[in-house]
Amino acid sequence: MSESQTRSAGATAWRDLPCGDVDEEAVGRTVRLAGWVHRRRDLGGVVFLHLRDRTGLVQLAFNPDWTPGPVVEQLGDLNPEDVIAVGGRVEMRPADAVNPDMETGRVEVRVEAMERVSEAAPLPILVAIPPDEELPSEELRLRHRVLDLRRPEMQRNFRIRHLAANSARRALADDGFLEIETPFLTRRTPEGARDYLVPSRIHPGEFYALPQSPQLYKQLLMVAGFDRYFQIARCLRDEDLRADRQPEFTQIDVEMAFVDEDDVFAAAERMLARVLSEAVGIDLGGPVPRMTHADALEHYGTDKPDLRIPWRLEDFTDALSGLGFGIIDGVRDAGGRVRGFRVPGGAAISRSRLDSASATAQANGAKGALWLKRSETGWSGPPARFLEGEPGDRLAAAHGIEPGDLALMVAGPDSETSPSLDALRRTIAADEGAVEEGLRWTWITDFPLFEADPDTGMAVASHHPFTMPDVTEPERLLSDPFSVGSRAYDLVLNGTELCSGSIRCHRPDLQRAILKVLGMGEDEIESRFGFLLESFRYGVPPHGGFAMGFDRLVAMLVGTTSIREVIAFPKTTAARGLLEGAPSPLAADELIELGLSLR
Amino acid sequence: MSESQTRSAGATAWRDLPCGDVDEEAVGRTVRLAGWVHRRRDLGGVVFLHLRDRTGLVQLAFNPDWTPGPVVEQLGDLNPEDVIAVGGRVEMRPADAVNPDMETGRVEVRVEAMERVSEAAPLPILVAIPPDEELPSEELRLRHRVLDLRRPEMQRNFRIRHLAANSARRALADDGFLEIETPFLTRRTPEGARDYLVPSRIHPGEFYALPQSPQLYKQLLMVAGFDRYFQIARCLRDEDLRADRQPEFTQIDVEMAFVDEDDVFAAAERMLARVLSEAVGIDLGGPVPRMTHADALEHYGTDKPDLRIPWRLEDFTDALSGLGFGIIDGVRDAGGRVRGFRVPGGAAISRSRLDSASATAQANGAKGALWLKRSETGWSGPPARFLEGEPGDRLAAAHGIEPGDLALMVAGPDSETSPSLDALRRTIAADEGAVEEGLRWTWITDFPLFEADPDTGMAVASHHPFTMPDVTEPERLLSDPFSVGSRAYDLVLNGTELCSGSIRCHRPDLQRAILKVLGMGEDEIESRFGFLLESFRYGVPPHGGFAMGFDRLVAMLVGTTSIREVIAFPKTTAARGLLEGAPSPLAADELIELGLSLR
Repeated sequence: MSESQTRSAGATAWRDLPCGDVDEEAVGRTVRLAGWVHRRRDLGGVVFLHLRDRTGLVQLAFNPDWTPGPVVEQLGDLNPEDVIAVGGRVEMRPADAVNPDMETGRVEVRVEAMERVSEAAPLPILVAIPPDEELPSEELRLRHRVLDLRRPEMQRNFRIRHLAANSARRALADDGFLEIETPFLTRRTPEGARDYLVPSRIHPGEFYALPQSPQLYKQLLMVAGFDRYFQIARCLRDEDLRADRQPEFTQIDVEMAFVDEDDVFAAAERMLARVLSEAVGIDLGGPVPRMTHADALEHYGTDKPDLRIPWRLEDFTDALSGLGFGIIDGVRDAGGRVRGFRVPGGAAISRSRLDSASATAQANGAKGALWLKRSETGWSGPPARFLEGEPGDRLAAAHGIEPGDLALMVAGPDSETSPSLDALRRTIAADEGAVEEGLRWTWITDFPLFEADPDTGMAVASHHPFTMPDVTEPERLLSDPFSVGSRAYDLVLNGTELCSGSIRCHRPDLQRAILKVLGMGEDEIESRFGFLLESFRYGVPPHGGFAMGFDRLVAMLVGTTSIREVIAFPKTTAARGLLEGAPSPLAADELIELGLSLR
Repeated sequence: MSESQTRSAGATAWRDLPCGDVDEEAVGRTVRLAGWVHRRRDLGGVVFLHLRDRTGLVQLAFNPDWTPGPVVEQLGDLNPEDVIAVGGRVEMRPADAVNPDMETGRVEVRVEAMERVSEAAPLPILVAIPPDEELPSEELRLRHRVLDLRRPEMQRNFRIRHLAANSARRALADDGFLEIETPFLTRRTPEGARDYLVPSRIHPGEFYALPQSPQLYKQLLMVAGFDRYFQIARCLRDEDLRADRQPEFTQIDVEMAFVDEDDVFAAAERMLARVLSEAVGIDLGGPVPRMTHADALEHYGTDKPDLRIPWRLEDFTDALSGLGFGIIDGVRDAGGRVRGFRVPGGAAISRSRLDSASATAQANGAKGALWLKRSETGWSGPPARFLEGEPGDRLAAAHGIEPGDLALMVAGPDSETSPSLDALRRTIAADEGAVEEGLRWTWITDFPLFEADPDTGMAVASHHPFTMPDVTEPERLLSDPFSVGSRAYDLVLNGTELCSGSIRCHRPDLQRAILKVLGMGEDEIESRFGFLLESFRYGVPPHGGFAMGFDRLVAMLVGTTSIREVIAFPKTTAARGLLEGAPSPLAADELIELGLSLR
């Protein structure tokens, strides 16, 4: 179904059918086709040309036996990427000319008439790039995006993006969600990043903000009684861009009233299952497993665990302390732990690779990494000499370390060991080829409500300020904020956060307390969130939802790591549109009209 | 199907089913429900309360026979719009208590437990407004939009909007269109209105423009080979707002390659037919009729004819000139005409109403209106004395004027008579109740490519500058622009332009000539449209499309004349968001960060 959905409906004023639909059923018919000149082969008097459109390629055969002289002559002028319209008879190819790699490879069209509809100048980048050749630089590709997008790989990316959006919408609509559009010209919001601002011409000195997300509006829609809302929403953030960020991105934005986590997860999973199956034919499998934030940190050192890697962190403190190894005993006495993971067969890893592992640990905040190898004859590595006899046997038994295995560990407080071990686990697994195939999903739940800003120690929201705490008294929030848990959750796929959400705070008193903990005074709360809190005065349903990164989801579906491959006209990391040339300077009178001047 | 699609999926953590789903099937079951307190009736010891959610109302019955004392007591504190959760048994109502106006009116829920989930303060505007009461002022409604949106009428509007978007998307996807997202941070475009501008923080002095429409991007997507594109796209225009305009609006944006008008109209009609039938159960009928721009002006005086009015303009010049009536002979000699329309039975219209008709004609640029009434005994009205005998018989026969009819006419050049007669036709028809019920669609085709600006006489684009002319030589465009026709079209519904489009100009030489006629020099063409023209150098397919005003379409579907009734969070005519308070001033340091200062 999905394939036929994206096929052109066929006949138009310029063609009887699209190129990719020319099949054996059409043999014997005279047809009109139109498309781009993709590739051309001259074999003496006979010329073969691949004509291309969105649906695929078809072979055109020019031969003086059936092609009139003037058409043959015109052929000489044709350039790659010219748009042409042809008429001719569909015939089976001779058996030895069948191309099994081409969907239309059993037939050809014997051209009897041709019109050159639009001429192509010499190309700055090729469309028909042989599979073994490298693509042009990304800058060239973005500058000449119109040619870049013609490549069948890019056409496929956007067909899958379309199917994914389509499936998400149908799944949500079938589940009782209403798609409701929220404004782009909004009041400034509090998502942590900078707002893009829009000066008002008729209210000089005032600015709209472009939405960083529809967060507040979707909560207002719940208060307005819409029960289930979704939107595939564009969001804009004026951030300093990293390699895989864009100033504008798309999210599947969902909110539900009268729900708890089970309801939200079930809705998200029903949607995902449909997107995966309809867009790329993948099965989501059973319900997505869940893991608390605390467990994720304990077993993977991160709240975005890549579960394709079978290794889990373990606590080696008991097995390794009290043996006389000063480093470890010192860490234990300071309240720290020795944590690490077993690499089955990892004893073969070279000393220099282990040294660079130690450097990785240091780069992530630890003092270094410890390693232990077990062979048939005993232990090697820095703690080895403390492990002769019974302590070594106990270690091996407690942690299942077999001869040939490596244990890689980091000692220190959890705040240092967790990020280090996360990095080590991912690096070593990639090196060792221990990352399994497939898609491993997990919900991470029970995030703390606040985190301490590493620089100031001030409370910042772990997710966002509209999350329901796990306490019911505002006083608890104010007196001991860092002990408060929250009903926030993330959906993690293969180590990437794909989706984030929470059960929201629908109690005005708790919401005010949260904003106070974040350092806002009454005036700031009123000026920034007064309209939300005002709406909470007139009957708020309990509600929650999620936002799923749609660009990232599609990138995953098509098998690319860069979201720029699934955005038609992306910006560079300097937030420039190279194709259209944006941003661009204004004329002086236009600035005046906005009531602004340049500094 | 459409109804069940928008029903809540039912059970959640807070409820076993939504309010509107409580029916006879549930009788005998104990259920949990949650929603808003809509209305309440106290009948001695028994209290009835309507509980509301998106799906409808259900009656809760509180009676000491089955309701525990503490719950009955709690009832005293309840306010309208409190959110409550209840548990109770569904029972049939006694026969005399059945409410046939309520979908759940045969049952009630006998409440055994209740939790007040969220308390509502006294309401600034009511939700449960009796049908015979006026709505609050629009300003109050917008300020307290969250309450306003709770009204069942508004809930219905957004359910229909959702269904319409859904149906449009499905129809287009089934027709081979791909939904592709285009940027919001763009280069300035040429749609005639002002762009909203976004200062770039990292490129001081440069600005992005928010899209007035995806026009250029959708043409680029055709050049990129996507064949069929659509998007339900937000568009932003910094216009001086009229009553029924919004700074941001939504359009169904469509473009197709290798097509002519027939293909575009067929695709638009397939989509419309599905939207009408699935969202509101209306039949589009057969193919939408077409009318040329010239015929529309000739027969209706406007390119947006309201075909629900059966009257057509006719040319009375022949019948009325040469009879000695100086005004008419003078107009004829100056190259003008006497045009007008017959109002069957209109002889009953009073003299004062005809005088005000003359004022209407004057307000629309004419010298005045002429009227003629025919009775059984002869003619009355200014030209009557020239019509005794044969001239009168000739007039009656030529224009079918029966005794009791009125002919209302305007004399002058067409440029004056057309707008005047359009206004008269609509005004008199509304007064006379001559506007038929139903939806009358028509395509208006063959617009001129250029119009003369009434102030400067300069050429401006009738539709937009990317329309294909009906000539093939750039020289013809440059030498005699006002004689050139175009392949632009509008879809008009009941006198409103709902949709506009064209077959685009895919020839770079013609496109450049059009931009030159519009007064642009080479530099301006290069700076504003260089990227489009550059893309046209590498093989452009013939293409065309349309943009349909989605807000207006939905307004028509729900039966309102204001698009603000179908936009969740609209702006005022001063472009303010009253709910959230946008736009708003910036802090000084924020301006500095943008490299701007206020003038």
